[in-house]
Amino acid sequence: MCVACDYTIHRKDHHLGWNRDFVPVLRAEPGSTIHFKCLDSSGGQFDAGSTAQDVTTMDFSRVNPVTGPVFVEGAEPGDVLKVSIRHFAPSGLGWTANIPGFGLLADQFTDPAIHIWKYEPSTMAPSLFGPGGKVPLKPFAGTVGVAMAEPGLHSVVPPRRVGGNLDIRDLTAGVTLYLPIEVPGALFSIGDTHAAQGDGEVCGTAIESQMDVEITLDLIKDTKLASPRFTTPGPVTHHLDAAGYEVTTGVGPDLMTGARESVMRMIDLLTAEHGLSPVDAYMLCSVCGDLRISEIVDMPNWVVTFYFPRIVFA
Amino acid sequence: MCVACDYTIHRKDHHLGWNRDFVPVLRAEPGSTIHFKCLDSSGGQFDAGSTAQDVTTMDFSRVNPVTGPVFVEGAEPGDVLKVSIRHFAPSGLGWTANIPGFGLLADQFTDPAIHIWKYEPSTMAPSLFGPGGKVPLKPFAGTVGVAMAEPGLHSVVPPRRVGGNLDIRDLTAGVTLYLPIEVPGALFSIGDTHAAQGDGEVCGTAIESQMDVEITLDLIKDTKLASPRFTTPGPVTHHLDAAGYEVTTGVGPDLMTGARESVMRMIDLLTAEHGLSPVDAYMLCSVCGDLRISEIVDMPNWVVTFYFPRIVFA
Repeated sequence: MCVACDYTIHRKDHHLGWNRDFVPVLRAEPGSTIHFKCLDSSGGQFDAGSTAQDVTTMDFSRVNPVTGPVFVEGAEPGDVLKVSIRHFAPSGLGWTANIPGFGLLADQFTDPAIHIWKYEPSTMAPSLFGPGGKVPLKPFAGTVGVAMAEPGLHSVVPPRRVGGNLDIRDLTAGVTLYLPIEVPGALFSIGDTHAAQGDGEVCGTAIESQMDVEITLDLIKDTKLASPRFTTPGPVTHHLDAAGYEVTTGVGPDLMTGARESVMRMIDLLTAEHGLSPVDAYMLCSVCGDLRISEIVDMPNWVVTFYFPRIVFA
Repeated sequence: MCVACDYTIHRKDHHLGWNRDFVPVLRAEPGSTIHFKCLDSSGGQFDAGSTAQDVTTMDFSRVNPVTGPVFVEGAEPGDVLKVSIRHFAPSGLGWTANIPGFGLLADQFTDPAIHIWKYEPSTMAPSLFGPGGKVPLKPFAGTVGVAMAEPGLHSVVPPRRVGGNLDIRDLTAGVTLYLPIEVPGALFSIGDTHAAQGDGEVCGTAIESQMDVEITLDLIKDTKLASPRFTTPGPVTHHLDAAGYEVTTGVGPDLMTGARESVMRMIDLLTAEHGLSPVDAYMLCSVCGDLRISEIVDMPNWVVTFYFPRIVFA
C-alpha cells in the first residue's frame, strides 16, 4: 500500500501506556519513512453493530493502543524529533461515544451513548449524522509522541511535554510536528486515529476510526524545545468553513467555566434548531465544533467561544 | 457616506462605562440602520507620531469610549437585540501598545511599547510590521453591547452577559450578533474598533483604529438568551490562512497556564526565526495569532494551542 515506505509496523505491535523501557519493535535510521498500521482507540471493541450497551461493557484496559515504539538511531535526550505526517489510509468505519465519567460535560451526560459512522475512505466525503447532518472529514492521529525520561509505566490518557494524547485536530497529512526527545532512540509511537474532530474534543471522543499512517522520522540535534510544536502548509479549516459558523459564548473569570457554558449553549441551540437530542448534539459538537479563546485580557472576564460549522446542516 | 442609514451618531456622543441611567442619544424604531462614528479605544490620545512615552502618560479615564446609547423603541427585558453588522469605514491609522499591568504576559512585559500602523482604508491591504512582516486586516468592533439591569456605573473593561468589551475578532461585516436585553430600550452602544486582532488579544490591544460602523438594530421579542451569540455568513480566517500556521502548545492541567505557555513559546519562535524583539513579537501575536483549546478532556492535562499565520512572513 505504501510505495515510499522503508518499513511497516503491524497492528499487533502496539503498546498501552508509555514506558521508556518498552522494547522497540523497529530500529530505524533518521530519514526513514514508516507505515504504521494503527488500531482505533477502543482497540477494536466496537463495530458497525455496536450499541450504547457496548459502551457500558467496554474494557478500559485495552483503550488507546499506540503502534510502536520505534527506536530512531542516533536520537539522544536534548534532540528534537521531526515528524513529517505524509498520508492517512482510513478504514471507512468510525464511532463516537459518550463515555460516562469522561468529557467536558460529564456531570450532565451520565448515560452511555454511541454513534456509528460509515464513510467512503477513497473520497472522504462528509459523513451522515442523523436527519440532515453531514460532517466534513479530515483524518489525523490523536496520539503521537515519544517516551518520557521518567521511568515506569505512564497512562496514555493525558498528553505531556513529549506529546502523546494531544488530540490536536490539525495534525493532518502535510503537517510537520516537532517533539522533544527525552530518552535514547526517542521511542516514537502513534495511534488513536480520528476521521474528524473539533478543537476541544468536547464529549471526549472524536470520530474514532482505525487507519494506516505514513510518517517520516528525522532528527534535529541539540535543539531546545519545551513542548510540541507544528507547522501546517496551508489552511486548516477549509473543509468546515464555507457556510460560516454559529457561535456561542461563555463570558467570565474562569476559562473552564467559559468553555463549558459556550458548549452548553451550542447544545441548546442545536437541539432547538435541528431537533437533535442533547447527547447527539454534544457528540456532534465534539466531532466538528471548535473551542476558541476570543479574549483573555479584559480583566476579570475572559470570552471563550464555541464555533459550530453551518455546513453540517447546509 | 452611508447611503442606507436612517441616522448618524457622531463621535462627541460617546460614553465611558455602562450605566442603565445614561440618557439615550437617539431613539430608533426596530429595523433602523444607524451610522455610528466611533473613536479609537484611547479616545484619540495617539497619533502617527506617538511613542512609548505617550503610553506611560495615557489618561486612563478617557479609555474605551463607546458611541451611543441608542434606545430601541419597544425593547423590553427578556427580548433579544439582533445586531446586523453591515459595514466598516476605517481611518487608515492604528496603534498597538503594550500597556504595563495589562495583557496575558503582563508580568514579563513591564515596559511600555507602541507600534503605529498605517494602512490603506480603501483596499485594506496587509499592513507592514517591521522588516518583512505584513499583517492581513479585517475590521471589527471590539466593544458592542447593551446596558445591564444592575444600576450604577460599570467599568467598560470586562465583557459581560450583555456583551460589551467582547473583543471577538470575528464580529466583522456580514455578521449577525444577538444580545440579551435587560433594560427598557436596550441602550445599545458600540466602539473600540480594531483593524485586526487575533483570538485572545494576548498583549491586551489589537490594531486600535478609529472607524465608522453601519449597524441595523432589530428586536426578537420574548426570547431567552444567556449570553451573546452570533452567526457568520462565511469563512472567518481566509485572510490569514493561505500559507498555513506555525503552532505552539501549552500542555497541562490549567487552561490559563497553557495559554500563557503557548504564547511564550510563539514569542520565542518568532524572535529566533525573524529577529523580532520579544515585545514586538508579543504585540504581533496579539494582532494576528489565535488561541485555541485543542483538547479539554484528556484528564488531567489540557492542550492550549497558539496559531500564528505564516502569511505574515511569506
